[in-house]
Amino acid sequence: MFNQTDLGGYTASFVDGLYQAGVHKVVISPGSRSTPLAITFHAHPQIETWINVDERSAAFFALGMAKALHEPVVLLCSSGTAAANYFPAIIEARYSRVPLIVLTADRPHELREVGAPQTIDQIKLYGNHVKHYQDMPIPDGSPGLNHFVKASAIRACGAAIDAPSGPVHLNFPFREPLVPEMKPELFHTESPAFTQSLTLGSPAVDEVVYTEWALLWKNVERPLICVGPQTNSNLRPYILELANLLNAPVIADPLSGLRIGGDEASLIISGYDAFLRSDRFTTSVQPDAVIRFGAMPVSKPFLKYLEKCNPKHYWVVDEAAVFREPTHLATQFVKSDAALFCKSLTTALERVGYRPTPDWLSLWQRIDKVTASEIHHFVEDSPWFEGQVVDHVLKQLDDHAALFVGNSMPIRDVDTFLLERKTPLALYANRGANGIDGVVSTALGVSAVRKPVTLLIGDLSFFHDMNGLMVAKRYGLDITIVVINNNGGGIFSFLSQAKEKEETFETLFGTPLDIDIEAVARLYGANFNKAVDLPSFTKALEEGKAVQGLKIIEAVTERKENAALHRDLWSRVVQAVDQALERSLI
Amino acid sequence: MFNQTDLGGYTASFVDGLYQAGVHKVVISPGSRSTPLAITFHAHPQIETWINVDERSAAFFALGMAKALHEPVVLLCSSGTAAANYFPAIIEARYSRVPLIVLTADRPHELREVGAPQTIDQIKLYGNHVKHYQDMPIPDGSPGLNHFVKASAIRACGAAIDAPSGPVHLNFPFREPLVPEMKPELFHTESPAFTQSLTLGSPAVDEVVYTEWALLWKNVERPLICVGPQTNSNLRPYILELANLLNAPVIADPLSGLRIGGDEASLIISGYDAFLRSDRFTTSVQPDAVIRFGAMPVSKPFLKYLEKCNPKHYWVVDEAAVFREPTHLATQFVKSDAALFCKSLTTALERVGYRPTPDWLSLWQRIDKVTASEIHHFVEDSPWFEGQVVDHVLKQLDDHAALFVGNSMPIRDVDTFLLERKTPLALYANRGANGIDGVVSTALGVSAVRKPVTLLIGDLSFFHDMNGLMVAKRYGLDITIVVINNNGGGIFSFLSQAKEKEETFETLFGTPLDIDIEAVARLYGANFNKAVDLPSFTKALEEGKAVQGLKIIEAVTERKENAALHRDLWSRVVQAVDQALERSLI
Repeated sequence: MFNQTDLGGYTASFVDGLYQAGVHKVVISPGSRSTPLAITFHAHPQIETWINVDERSAAFFALGMAKALHEPVVLLCSSGTAAANYFPAIIEARYSRVPLIVLTADRPHELREVGAPQTIDQIKLYGNHVKHYQDMPIPDGSPGLNHFVKASAIRACGAAIDAPSGPVHLNFPFREPLVPEMKPELFHTESPAFTQSLTLGSPAVDEVVYTEWALLWKNVERPLICVGPQTNSNLRPYILELANLLNAPVIADPLSGLRIGGDEASLIISGYDAFLRSDRFTTSVQPDAVIRFGAMPVSKPFLKYLEKCNPKHYWVVDEAAVFREPTHLATQFVKSDAALFCKSLTTALERVGYRPTPDWLSLWQRIDKVTASEIHHFVEDSPWFEGQVVDHVLKQLDDHAALFVGNSMPIRDVDTFLLERKTPLALYANRGANGIDGVVSTALGVSAVRKPVTLLIGDLSFFHDMNGLMVAKRYGLDITIVVINNNGGGIFSFLSQAKEKEETFETLFGTPLDIDIEAVARLYGANFNKAVDLPSFTKALEEGKAVQGLKIIEAVTERKENAALHRDLWSRVVQAVDQALERSLI
Repeated sequence: MFNQTDLGGYTASFVDGLYQAGVHKVVISPGSRSTPLAITFHAHPQIETWINVDERSAAFFALGMAKALHEPVVLLCSSGTAAANYFPAIIEARYSRVPLIVLTADRPHELREVGAPQTIDQIKLYGNHVKHYQDMPIPDGSPGLNHFVKASAIRACGAAIDAPSGPVHLNFPFREPLVPEMKPELFHTESPAFTQSLTLGSPAVDEVVYTEWALLWKNVERPLICVGPQTNSNLRPYILELANLLNAPVIADPLSGLRIGGDEASLIISGYDAFLRSDRFTTSVQPDAVIRFGAMPVSKPFLKYLEKCNPKHYWVVDEAAVFREPTHLATQFVKSDAALFCKSLTTALERVGYRPTPDWLSLWQRIDKVTASEIHHFVEDSPWFEGQVVDHVLKQLDDHAALFVGNSMPIRDVDTFLLERKTPLALYANRGANGIDGVVSTALGVSAVRKPVTLLIGDLSFFHDMNGLMVAKRYGLDITIVVINNNGGGIFSFLSQAKEKEETFETLFGTPLDIDIEAVARLYGANFNKAVDLPSFTKALEEGKAVQGLKIIEAVTERKENAALHRDLWSRVVQAVDQALERSLI
């Protein structure tokens, strides 16, 4: 007969399994049915427990922690719609490849789908959006159950980490009594038979194939490398070594980990989002071979450039065979660890004696310089607009600081204005599904495990996840949130919807919310500053550095004017690029 | 070749189909991919458009409207995680049987699962939790497509309304250009062939079966009728006619539509949640036959009473064969319209000459009176506690006012304290999955279609959906929100978790958030009052009646004291009931 000691043995085996497989943090949203696991996590000496009442925010908070730690973080909630609130963050974790271990408590089988309170069908609740699902057994004291439960914990971690990383879901039915008996020795008395190690190999392609590829590449004259959003911080030198050998310009997305810092920065092309708007450039300068790593870059002009070029060789390298290629023009998919691919291809190219084309890279470098200079002068001379906010945040960040970038306009502006920074900076964003939801909490999750963190976010996105701020107040998290407040959806002023008549546009797309950001700051005990021009913004950023805790800076901008200034900037860049090409006689 | 006129024809046919099938309201969350439908809804002369930026709140807001209107309400959002934010409200709609039509915009097939931005797998996104799913065709100008699209709209409404009502999901892939050409004549020039009427029959059992049942029931001596949460406002007279013939007490859940008002109120038993805590009662007073309608009542003592009695006949009547019966003791499931069942059984019982047992009903009535009197005196004499808040809100509400009740403690307190009100009152709650999420928005959805509305809610639940208040500010909705602020999860003080040591309990279960409710009120421009005792609370309620718009009243209470006073109340009721039974010699 089952009792509270059996329950404690079961939950302790599971939680200890998670710990042994590399879990150090759990984010719990309070509830009754989840009590056995909540009490066990809280009692575990090596696992840190965070409480976040709103499950939607909690899940994004865990996502941010997992992003910054590069390790799986656990989520725990009660039965019912609580679990459904995790869904947006789970989907983001899937597409941005972040390991999350989602634990939901459930009623036992005899109380499912029979009208019992706070009970919903949680079996495979997240459908295709988790990598692994397991309906856990009732803790009924069966012999061998604790071994199975520990093995399940380790397996769940393995599934979450294994490339491509992502979310997993385990559903735990619990009968009453829900309070387990906790003894300290529960976490440390396992026999070795209780432990399982986890070794996950990386996908690798045979050397023979690389030799064939190198022979093919001998004929390539205008190679281009593109690195989109990716999280392997060790990839940089391998890419640069390959690029160096090929004399290939490297299109480096702001989230590629390559755009900022380092010595071989001359290979890195940063201004492409602006200069690929030049028809003259995209018509006259075209690669015959492209290798792309990571996800698709943020830049839409780059996507259109790829489609226009339709390069003879277009290779996509990914650790998973998921074909992230929206142009449908790829000629070769390679499932491989990216660093391994670079190393092997570089070696093979050296072996076959690859000889680069001399002028190809330098042309890109020249155009990139012209672009950077044009953008630099524009930002210096323009009136106050969102470009200045972003440019200034990027410039004032300390070395090794983290910048979390909101979706919609902020990430696009970072793509435009992150040009010449040589000192290291960690950039984060939610680019799996590019939602404006959960951004505050994800950034706070990062701030819970590394410092200092600045969040750059628009007013709609800030509003969407205001509840996330509760955890900043509760735990005294240190973060600077720059809210670019253009009172609505700024991105729509750049799209065809902007041609609709004013009333329709403002109702359906502009959607001004008139959020009183200062009142929000007061609600969460944040330090607050409002900026309406560059001097007041500079001052606010400086002041923020001297204060610990939650700091909110409201940067007030104007939607229409902002769109006009962006267009002005792009047309100036295009003009300067066209002139430079004219001088180069292309 | 497809063009913007084709697009307008497609979307107008769809939206007109919805209108013809009974849709009058749409709640839109802004986005780009959903532009074709957003512009069409906005242009439709008979459909009212509401904007709600946070999709989670938007979905609960639509749920509230649909609850109050008894008609399907439409939701529209863009592609990506926006759609995932609908999930909690969709699940609530499923289990509380509210018709919702969820429309999600999607990228076209060639941009799905290929790394395109803001694109997630939306096919069957909500799994088993919707009644009907349809992946819509690309608007490509194919002949006959507009007929199909209109038929799909009508079919979706039919599926949402058909018993048991619930949510449906249609996923719309759109290619650019996204702005349709709108002409006023699009909505009114259909040939009759374009229209489809919808007739949905109710489940009915053959009369021969009722005669057999009536013969069986002739031997029943102690019948009990129970009506749980249900939304058919016409059911009342049919239940009472049956109860009258049987001389059966009617256990009426606060959400049954039967507890308040009307003439035959003597059949209605209201105080059972309190008096069924008496062992003496539950041992000595037991029905030999129970008929239950609606969902399971809120009351846990009633559930335990059913389990203890294990009645010889236990019938569950439901319009759907979904077996909402967590005791597993039912002896007969009847799939039938409830009113039809009552009418048919009453007629059959009259035919066979049913003769009721004289003392059975009167015993219940006497005990119910004793209970009401005990509760009445307790509330009069006790110090300030949550029971007084709830009791006072119930007493001061105007006739035909609506009260939305939050989950966790508020609904349980309403079950305890809603006893003697004879004048009509409309009660609402989210009792499908009993979540504390989305309650603010659901209540606001009710307030958008009927007045006046009061919301009774705890501080955690209020916090969970604070974003919902934005729509109150934007549209100047008129609602009084009474926030019972006991700074945390009050219900846990009633559960076994309360025996944990203070630090563990407060961290994992009590979870005080220290929300500054006044700052929230300021953020959303609400009229604010804080009450710390009965006089200040009474005053605040009175003041609120004189003000239009959003009114927030914070009623400050204390968790531990509140639990103690509830326990005190119950033990007094049990004592009084036991004495009354003693006097009755039972």
